[in-house]
Amino acid sequence: MSSLEISSSCFNQETKLLLSPPLAEGSAFEPYRSNQIMPPMPGIKKKRHFLSEECEPLRGDMDEVEEKSKDIINFTAEKLSVDEISKLVISPLCGAISLFVGTTRNNFEGKKVISLEYEAYLPMAENEVRKICGDIRQKWPVKHIAVFHRLGLVPVSEASIIIAISSAHRAASLEAVSYAIDTLKAKVPIWKKEIYEESSSWKRNKECFWASNN
Amino acid sequence: MSSLEISSSCFNQETKLLLSPPLAEGSAFEPYRSNQIMPPMPGIKKKRHFLSEECEPLRGDMDEVEEKSKDIINFTAEKLSVDEISKLVISPLCGAISLFVGTTRNNFEGKKVISLEYEAYLPMAENEVRKICGDIRQKWPVKHIAVFHRLGLVPVSEASIIIAISSAHRAASLEAVSYAIDTLKAKVPIWKKEIYEESSSWKRNKECFWASNN
Repeated sequence: MSSLEISSSCFNQETKLLLSPPLAEGSAFEPYRSNQIMPPMPGIKKKRHFLSEECEPLRGDMDEVEEKSKDIINFTAEKLSVDEISKLVISPLCGAISLFVGTTRNNFEGKKVISLEYEAYLPMAENEVRKICGDIRQKWPVKHIAVFHRLGLVPVSEASIIIAISSAHRAASLEAVSYAIDTLKAKVPIWKKEIYEESSSWKRNKECFWASNN
Repeated sequence: MSSLEISSSCFNQETKLLLSPPLAEGSAFEPYRSNQIMPPMPGIKKKRHFLSEECEPLRGDMDEVEEKSKDIINFTAEKLSVDEISKLVISPLCGAISLFVGTTRNNFEGKKVISLEYEAYLPMAENEVRKICGDIRQKWPVKHIAVFHRLGLVPVSEASIIIAISSAHRAASLEAVSYAIDTLKAKVPIWKKEIYEESSSWKRNKECFWASNN
């Protein structure tokens, strides 16, 4: 499977969001460069949340109006915190939280990796993650779903993605997390640049649905 | 399935460990009371670690001696931290960390739960968790395994158990975490007391292997 080789670009946090970005000419799946598509990157404490439903404050009394479910989707240049993201899906109605954390490995195909750099075609990426949340809710009785993806440079051992899902009983959140990361790798347009000691290359995820088209 | 009803006891952190605790007369599976079996409960920063192998310091260079695998098993009265436990399994060799967090739900069979109280037959519980770690290593190529169980009172929405497993690729840690929590529920002698608004009762886990014997 050939890798998608595209020119490198400098990732920075002062990039602007195209409100209605057009698809790149000649390729529906060519990733937008970070200076075209990245929104201003807010910190973890003021991050963008896309809520599928209105949020109700947590209530201690189970007889009161039931807490509404949340889908929290975030692409950010900030370092991801397992603790903060797991707290977003806590619910007094739930006995289980399952999480997946994708981290940068120090090696790939025998080469020493220094860091990874991620870029996404953001509007499409957000839509695809939102669809995955919808699919999950069709398949499993989960409560809250949080999907956070870091963009830009991610050094070795740091997290590029964290998925956290809560449910009343454990089977739902365990199965939903596996489904979420498998489907995200296959369907969400995110590119990574592996930065080796002496070279680098951009790649789409080898599992992505359009990988076999080239 | 009937629940195991036993008298309540006051859990405290100043209890002593019986070095060779005998089984309770009349029932091989009657839980030891906390004042018989609980060791002094160290804080999260000075917790007891049972390492299956010696630990090597993390090395940045993948050409150096490979970092050894760790099984970190801890029963503690301290509040559990997802962040601290996930950090214990980070490895530069790994691209995946999967976690399961079991939390106290605010309801059980239509009754409002105030908190849960956990007790374990500690020597057997530790052995069983160690066996589960061994089984996992037979089945999946995982790197580090951390299993932390809180004992004593666990209020609604707080964690009673956190399992974190790292692996080079995600399938191994995702499958291993599911196996770990399923097997722990079935095999590890841990009892929980559900404390309702107006009553309480001790129960073994309904999935435990001796549940059908009574």
